[in-house]
Amino acid sequence: MVNIAVLGYGTVGSGVVEVIHTNKEIIDKRAGQEIRIKYVLDLRDFPGDPVEQILTHDFNVILKDEEVKVVVEVMGGVEPAYTFVKQCIQAGKSVATSNKELVAAHGPELLALAKDHMVNFLFEASAGGGIPIIRPLNSSITADEVTEITGILNGTTNYILTKMANEGADYADVLAQAQKLGYAERNPEADVEGGDACRKIAILSSIVYGKNLDYTTIHTEGITNITKEDFQYAKVLDAAIKLVGTTKLTDGVLYSFVAPMMLDSRHPLSGIDDVFNGIFVHGNVLDDVMFYGRGAGKLPTASAVVSDVVDAVKHMGKNIMTIWDAEPLEIGDFSQAVNRFFVRTASDSEETVKEIFGDVEFVDAGISSEKAFLTKTMTEGSFAVLKNRLADVKNVIRVAF
Amino acid sequence: MVNIAVLGYGTVGSGVVEVIHTNKEIIDKRAGQEIRIKYVLDLRDFPGDPVEQILTHDFNVILKDEEVKVVVEVMGGVEPAYTFVKQCIQAGKSVATSNKELVAAHGPELLALAKDHMVNFLFEASAGGGIPIIRPLNSSITADEVTEITGILNGTTNYILTKMANEGADYADVLAQAQKLGYAERNPEADVEGGDACRKIAILSSIVYGKNLDYTTIHTEGITNITKEDFQYAKVLDAAIKLVGTTKLTDGVLYSFVAPMMLDSRHPLSGIDDVFNGIFVHGNVLDDVMFYGRGAGKLPTASAVVSDVVDAVKHMGKNIMTIWDAEPLEIGDFSQAVNRFFVRTASDSEETVKEIFGDVEFVDAGISSEKAFLTKTMTEGSFAVLKNRLADVKNVIRVAF
Repeated sequence: MVNIAVLGYGTVGSGVVEVIHTNKEIIDKRAGQEIRIKYVLDLRDFPGDPVEQILTHDFNVILKDEEVKVVVEVMGGVEPAYTFVKQCIQAGKSVATSNKELVAAHGPELLALAKDHMVNFLFEASAGGGIPIIRPLNSSITADEVTEITGILNGTTNYILTKMANEGADYADVLAQAQKLGYAERNPEADVEGGDACRKIAILSSIVYGKNLDYTTIHTEGITNITKEDFQYAKVLDAAIKLVGTTKLTDGVLYSFVAPMMLDSRHPLSGIDDVFNGIFVHGNVLDDVMFYGRGAGKLPTASAVVSDVVDAVKHMGKNIMTIWDAEPLEIGDFSQAVNRFFVRTASDSEETVKEIFGDVEFVDAGISSEKAFLTKTMTEGSFAVLKNRLADVKNVIRVAF
Repeated sequence: MVNIAVLGYGTVGSGVVEVIHTNKEIIDKRAGQEIRIKYVLDLRDFPGDPVEQILTHDFNVILKDEEVKVVVEVMGGVEPAYTFVKQCIQAGKSVATSNKELVAAHGPELLALAKDHMVNFLFEASAGGGIPIIRPLNSSITADEVTEITGILNGTTNYILTKMANEGADYADVLAQAQKLGYAERNPEADVEGGDACRKIAILSSIVYGKNLDYTTIHTEGITNITKEDFQYAKVLDAAIKLVGTTKLTDGVLYSFVAPMMLDSRHPLSGIDDVFNGIFVHGNVLDDVMFYGRGAGKLPTASAVVSDVVDAVKHMGKNIMTIWDAEPLEIGDFSQAVNRFFVRTASDSEETVKEIFGDVEFVDAGISSEKAFLTKTMTEGSFAVLKNRLADVKNVIRVAF
């Protein structure tokens, strides 16, 4: 029997407890021994909840209990999670976490610490929620040079964009509806401004390339500028508009950014709707693969966390080799990234557009008050210069076709 | 440094050699040490090919060389692959194979043998080709009761069905074209009659449920009866016709079959076209996940085989826990499986159809010489009885919506 502790009895924490109880027999069989939740840490009380009997308010009880071999950290935020996780690892306990802020900020350090202490630091749920992606990247896609990893990594924004596409609705209206339904937070900034997707693509890219991609260096745009008119054009182009996080190798240089993108209907990520997430990987020998599933939600996220607990139990006393060094992953300057752009402009004529951009493809969605066009591929820097010569740009969206 | 040997220098075998050379640096880093191909076994000679220097015609050279720690078996077919693999494992060598015939026929025995000898028997490429699926099922989806696994597992038939859908072409014409392009064998039976998909769903189901699903017991239908008229109806229904292998839990009983199915456009597998494969998994807490990629092809298959070699090297001296017991997986009698059916009949009137099937949904694709309808869900057994009361059935396709 292995004793574990769960730090945090919020949505994911209560999900972890529920999953371990619901699927006890299967989980114990796959782990090779019984998994018992000895403690749940939370500052709050939960009168009447069965968790009461194992609830503690004192982290030190868990830290000092040598019977506890695996700790689940599902509190979220960098502190006190970081301090707690570090102390657990130093005390010889493996840690499974769903905390993307923690992993993006301290992943390589905690992995190295776990290696030193012959335990494991696992974070399957920190990107892609329930989708098995961290473990496949680390242990399955090992024969390839990965030339691209691109993901729809945030369920809230994908829900909003899907609604906007299907209902022709405006951003603000759909956001309000999503907040009402609990799909978006009252303060939605981390989702809609791209910060959540940014941390996740940083984690995924670091695992793929084995060095640390500092999320604060990734060019990040959110979806707040996307309008219903953009979707009218997308429809004409047979494209979806998705918030993606991407790291891609171009001429030997890696470029990484988070931004809304138009994906045509042949792109494996274009059909991923609602709160679902998808992660597309291109390897030089594997070609295209894609992983699809629920990127958030209590039980899917808890499923991924518990799969880490099972893995930790199966590897008791052995460190699972995970290559994510503290050394910075070299990323090209964003101004040199090559993209194709969809542009809407209010007062510029077709002649002006052609004069500035040369050969473009105009797109007609029946909106007479503006012009819209697709540029050729060019660097972000070149595009910024040309764009400044337009009089009245309404919106710009990058295009993946 | 770890020495390996490759048994078979056909398509996949030469792909393995190519992948290991092309991505040498990355692969060695991920394996934690250098991987060196010491031998390639083939009965043929390859004058002028660099492989000549390491080519042997004698399996015993490899078997007796204690320096060879990992053997790649990519010969295909049950014999002599089975004998060779068994001897390698008994000699303390790990084996990585892409051979679905071997794995479907002898998987649990070879896994048990590997465990006894503290080596590994790995077969990521035996189902889903390059798609990471065996390792994720074994080590990632461990917290769930899996209630369904359904896959598009054969690239040849998916290519044919996609062409038929897109071009309104007949089966025979598309098959001939596929044979010309090398996407279908001159003797296409194993693909088009479903035998290949059958072995693959048997392997996947056995890994998911931890017991042996004997592939010979799975009800298997191929695509040879699918006509261009079926696709005209599918279009009206906004559905795709796909050859799927599926194992699904219904009222506590597992049912497994291989057959063409209509999937509506919301099904994660419906958009998987051409030679691509997809595997859909539903877990009781994870909800839906789907894995997509190239199910065949020299380099994608070789990528999966080499990922097994890397895993074998990382686990030298340790057996990776894989639950696939020899004990038979209990599967319900196919006559009790519950499905919904699309039926085309030539001479029966709507009245006759309603009299026999009760409330049905007629489908009009503008083909005046026949009637087509969707039944309610019912057991295969009940359907067979009712179907016999129709005078002139042209085709039946199961429906997943």
